[in-house]
Amino acid sequence: MSSCEIVIVGYGNVGRGVHRAIDNNTDMKLVGILSRGVERVKTELKEKGLEGIEVMDASGDIDFATELPADVAVLCGGSKDDLPVQGPKFARYYNVVDSFDTHADIPRYFKKMDGVASEAGNVAIISTGWDPGTFSEERVKADAFIPGSSLYTFWGPGVSQGHSDAARQVEGVKDARQYTLPLDEALERVRSGERPELSTREKHRRLVYVLAEEGVDRKKIVADIKNMPDYYDQYETEVRFVDEQEMKTDHSEMPHGGFVMASGATGKNNKALIEYRCKWDSNPEATANILAAYARAASRLNIRGETGGRTVLDICPADLSPRSRDELLDNFV
Amino acid sequence: MSSCEIVIVGYGNVGRGVHRAIDNNTDMKLVGILSRGVERVKTELKEKGLEGIEVMDASGDIDFATELPADVAVLCGGSKDDLPVQGPKFARYYNVVDSFDTHADIPRYFKKMDGVASEAGNVAIISTGWDPGTFSEERVKADAFIPGSSLYTFWGPGVSQGHSDAARQVEGVKDARQYTLPLDEALERVRSGERPELSTREKHRRLVYVLAEEGVDRKKIVADIKNMPDYYDQYETEVRFVDEQEMKTDHSEMPHGGFVMASGATGKNNKALIEYRCKWDSNPEATANILAAYARAASRLNIRGETGGRTVLDICPADLSPRSRDELLDNFV
Repeated sequence: MSSCEIVIVGYGNVGRGVHRAIDNNTDMKLVGILSRGVERVKTELKEKGLEGIEVMDASGDIDFATELPADVAVLCGGSKDDLPVQGPKFARYYNVVDSFDTHADIPRYFKKMDGVASEAGNVAIISTGWDPGTFSEERVKADAFIPGSSLYTFWGPGVSQGHSDAARQVEGVKDARQYTLPLDEALERVRSGERPELSTREKHRRLVYVLAEEGVDRKKIVADIKNMPDYYDQYETEVRFVDEQEMKTDHSEMPHGGFVMASGATGKNNKALIEYRCKWDSNPEATANILAAYARAASRLNIRGETGGRTVLDICPADLSPRSRDELLDNFV
Repeated sequence: MSSCEIVIVGYGNVGRGVHRAIDNNTDMKLVGILSRGVERVKTELKEKGLEGIEVMDASGDIDFATELPADVAVLCGGSKDDLPVQGPKFARYYNVVDSFDTHADIPRYFKKMDGVASEAGNVAIISTGWDPGTFSEERVKADAFIPGSSLYTFWGPGVSQGHSDAARQVEGVKDARQYTLPLDEALERVRSGERPELSTREKHRRLVYVLAEEGVDRKKIVADIKNMPDYYDQYETEVRFVDEQEMKTDHSEMPHGGFVMASGATGKNNKALIEYRCKWDSNPEATANILAAYARAASRLNIRGETGGRTVLDICPADLSPRSRDELLDNFV
């Protein structure tokens, strides 16, 4: 297979994950890293014995495509502050893929990216990852295969960055880690074909590990977290206090995952159920792996002459795969 | 949404299922049925109060596209005898979709269908349904998202037509119904991330309900079934004898389903698991519903100017959905 040359934009957890994903995909090659912290990245790479990799300043205002030619730029920044700027910026120079995940802003972001990429003759695949991303696909397909079905999405067990950050804002909290836990009873009710209407509280519960500052009122911390609007007040929330060592040893990983289910009927009244589940020990690496597969697709689409914005809903499975058409027909269909 | 006009070719269990699926998809319209048993179908439709539907002889040698214009012909015949003839025949007249499921012959059948459809300016999507079909897609996507992962496919719990037919060939067997059962222990081992190498016997077992002829040697029937090469000898097989009433009451349904799992790692060694499951009370209606969604896609591809053979691996999720692009972006991504 021909090699897909990739630039990583943003070298945090997801960017490092994309670096490892490229190493795990024999048809991909890392040609450079764009970062706002060039020195930090260079030091990190040096420590890993990887001095050969080109590192450039992502905040620069240069013709990146000429300075660092590549087939695809994988944008690894966050949806809140990074991608709204970096997406339109880099879609001018490269085919791009990202994991923009602010659901409510996706239509607007798509329009912006579609415009820039179309004008530049590039392809921009937005909102990949697992939700949005593979979960989006599974929702659409299940809805098409079982018309009129009830769709359910459950998240977890896993660490939610947003909810952890929110708990850290509470007075007296030094550090916090929040686990989102889907409720087994809800999963089983959906699997049974019951098609329940589930309230927010009936779908998930939240478990927060808190490292408190010394001498603070723990009861107040518990109450402040449990009553936090939007983040916690609609859930059954449990707060557990841990010491610094425990936080480090037991809660430094970032596992996540979830379930998409569609429950409905075929024909007149024959029950039908589709369930898709993913479970990742490393959430950022999961996102990274999926970004890498869509980077392959972005490159192929552009080679075929396609341009403009795309979502995962516009990409066919064959374009995600490193395998040849013959191998897919022989061994995977 | 514009309406997709459909011709059903073959009015057995799957064909009837497609008829119901069309009724359940508001953007689809049945324009006619092609069958080799025109009178039988007409009688059946009349009994259901559906005399208005055009029924034509599928074995005829006429210009079907002119006699019965439609966007897509959904081919509902079997893979052994029907599709090898009907596929190439009807791909000359219509965009077609089928559920050709003889895995080993798919590459050859694809080539044939691709040639005919290309020449006629039609689209032919072959081997839809759930396996091959949605399971094929899930295997390819999981393999792309978790490079190097171990892929597993489990079937059941459900009735296997082929194995039921095989048991019926045994001397003294009047009727038989075979259930394929995935072994829970194997499912759990895969889910655990163990990545076991599973033998045929470790993945599934087989349960056969037999209606025996009177006065026959039941022990011999049991032995004959259990020792049947390919079909049964590699499995733990259980044979249970039932009477005619029990066979009719408890075993006349055709449920089926299965699991696709990918177990592997992201990054250096972080475990990753993807699991896709479907569970259908009616296997033929499941195939029918999926055929209907791909019929929609075939029509759209052809309207966009595409021609030739396709598999499910070439179709993007958005083309399967009756929903508008805006609705998908707003509510499903």
